[in-house]
Amino acid sequence: MLELPSSSRAATLLAQVRERRPRVHCLMNTVVQKFTADGITVVGGIPSMTSSIEEIESFVAKADALVVNLGTLDRARREVIRLAVDVANAAGKPWVLDPVHCDYSPSRLAFANELVALGPAIVRGNTAEMSLFEETGSPVRICTGPVDRLADDGRSVRIANGHRWMAAVTGTGCLTGGVIAAFMAVEPDTLVAAASALVVTGVSAELAAREAKGPGSFGVAFLDALSEVGAGDLLQHARIEDDQN
Amino acid sequence: MLELPSSSRAATLLAQVRERRPRVHCLMNTVVQKFTADGITVVGGIPSMTSSIEEIESFVAKADALVVNLGTLDRARREVIRLAVDVANAAGKPWVLDPVHCDYSPSRLAFANELVALGPAIVRGNTAEMSLFEETGSPVRICTGPVDRLADDGRSVRIANGHRWMAAVTGTGCLTGGVIAAFMAVEPDTLVAAASALVVTGVSAELAAREAKGPGSFGVAFLDALSEVGAGDLLQHARIEDDQN
Amino acid sequence: MLELPSSSRAATLLAQVRERRPRVHCLMNTVVQKFTADGITVVGGIPSMTSSIEEIESFVAKADALVVNLGTLDRARREVIRLAVDVANAAGKPWVLDPVHCDYSPSRLAFANELVALGPAIVRGNTAEMSLFEETGSPVRICTGPVDRLADDGRSVRIANGHRWMAAVTGTGCLTGGVIAAFMAVEPDTLVAAASALVVTGVSAELAAREAKGPGSFGVAFLDALSEVGAGDLLQHARIEDDQN
Repeated sequence: MLELPSSSRAATLLAQVRERRPRVHCLMNTVVQKFTADGITVVGGIPSMTSSIEEIESFVAKADALVVNLGTLDRARREVIRLAVDVANAAGKPWVLDPVHCDYSPSRLAFANELVALGPAIVRGNTAEMSLFEETGSPVRICTGPVDRLADDGRSVRIANGHRWMAAVTGTGCLTGGVIAAFMAVEPDTLVAAASALVVTGVSAELAAREAKGPGSFGVAFLDALSEVGAGDLLQHARIEDDQN
Repeated sequence: MLELPSSSRAATLLAQVRERRPRVHCLMNTVVQKFTADGITVVGGIPSMTSSIEEIESFVAKADALVVNLGTLDRARREVIRLAVDVANAAGKPWVLDPVHCDYSPSRLAFANELVALGPAIVRGNTAEMSLFEETGSPVRICTGPVDRLADDGRSVRIANGHRWMAAVTGTGCLTGGVIAAFMAVEPDTLVAAASALVVTGVSAELAAREAKGPGSFGVAFLDALSEVGAGDLLQHARIEDDQN
Repeated sequence: MLELPSSSRAATLLAQVRERRPRVHCLMNTVVQKFTADGITVVGGIPSMTSSIEEIESFVAKADALVVNLGTLDRARREVIRLAVDVANAAGKPWVLDPVHCDYSPSRLAFANELVALGPAIVRGNTAEMSLFEETGSPVRICTGPVDRLADDGRSVRIANGHRWMAAVTGTGCLTGGVIAAFMAVEPDTLVAAASALVVTGVSAELAAREAKGPGSFGVAFLDALSEVGAGDLLQHARIEDDQN
């Protein structure tokens, strides 16, 4: 029987990320590159961010996992994403697809569908984005929002952590994609890895909201919390529910 | 007789932005994309940021207003700006031109003049930038600084809100352009919309400065304040002066 | 005999930067453009950031010093860097080379070596990056880390200021490159200029850490501290050591 995610598993994986310091390469929209890099760093990983076609193979070769984020997508970036995915697939490295705003642009949606066919370990988006993809059954699907829903072929889970200010800070979803990749690098069960990452980011957001006065200071406190969040916080605050029934 | 802006109008328009959540597409320099997106979000709008030529038509079609910011301007970006402006003009959507640093580069100034001829609703810059444009009379002209000056064919207004730390945080002017666009989306009288947006950002800056210890924490507190600023703050602190006489 | 850097020299140069407001043009990776621009501004300089080939000559012509940072390096950026360096060299303007992550990519390392041959005033990197360059003797070499080491043909100095959270905030090294450039603009002795800049950033980091709760709030407090740090702080906290013996 397939394992279900839990707060104690999340705590164990967080400790492993902090110890092993996985490298995460991000093909990340230009808007939130620093915020995402900071998030990966403070949670324990090592980010890199180039989108240069001449360099991408070397950077993916050094990475343990890959994030493909479709924000600020132009022709050059499509090309580099295709190459990065080829290199990751050939090396058996897991990658997350984040089809940001594919509901805004037919050409971006078409590209997202092309990438889904190349076998990402995870597709993660909001409700509007995720409703555009056919049920493929194969990769882990994550629909983030006030409650995150994760599903693969045999499991379906809800995570009810987080805070409304996450939606007021540009890039918390993109940053979360980076944290998920860091967790995939230390845990082969993709759904367990992703759920654990979402518990860590969601609980950190709740801790951050207590320190913050608004969305600006929340964004800052969120990084502090991702750096400090511990097993005790996860065991106490994680809200993971089996969504099967 | 043309209406003059007022603190109560600013308060009403702020409430409308928060209720209607206008979409603002930004062709924004790569330096301050996140800060601008965060500013538009916390004031109540929905930002988007792509500069991809393949996607721009879809994004502008979804937007209620457009910001054209000339920072980090290269050939590809000129091309995408021209297309975005065509789409916005054809659909009757208002756009703001922010000719950042056009005083640094003759090629950028030439491009700014090309765009002015295409009919932006507003041209907004600092004194050095704005002194380079001919008096055209037609669009609203805004010269921001310690005191902001706004003028159109029949009106001339000064807004004396703000704080010196705004000049120490890269992108407050660019962010202000985004907030102006959000206000234009809910108010067809461009000068009233822009003046109201400047009152909101200026009063928010004053509130933020009380919470901050320096320019770093000011930038964060500014986002908090933009999210929290209310009608009472605007009525109490707005400094709008008729500049006609 | 060559002058050695000192806390009082650092204080004098900081005052000069604040008074003269040098212009620093940055060919900066897209990840940390705003953080670097904010750092240069709060320390007293005036940053600019375009990487457009059509504009770079005008911007470098206006600048007092140049930062060439190799993050997010693509073909267009190589081209613009070559042109910027030509313009800077022809005009006798000093430039810093920051070979970010050249240990990740052979093509980036090759380009870094091409640039070293063009005579930067300073090459600054971390241990992994700096170990890849031949001893050339000529420019000032800076290896930053928990202790910064600076050397030129006749001098060798260690600076033991800073805080571990600097490594948890993406871009503190890049920002430091920008501050070094601002100091080079007011002081022709490159090693003294760079050491003074590193004392200013290192002491500011120590002051910031006292205000911060984690790496997120540290990044914000670091900008506040760079803006506020004074001669008294430098005289009290600078840890500069002669590394000759």
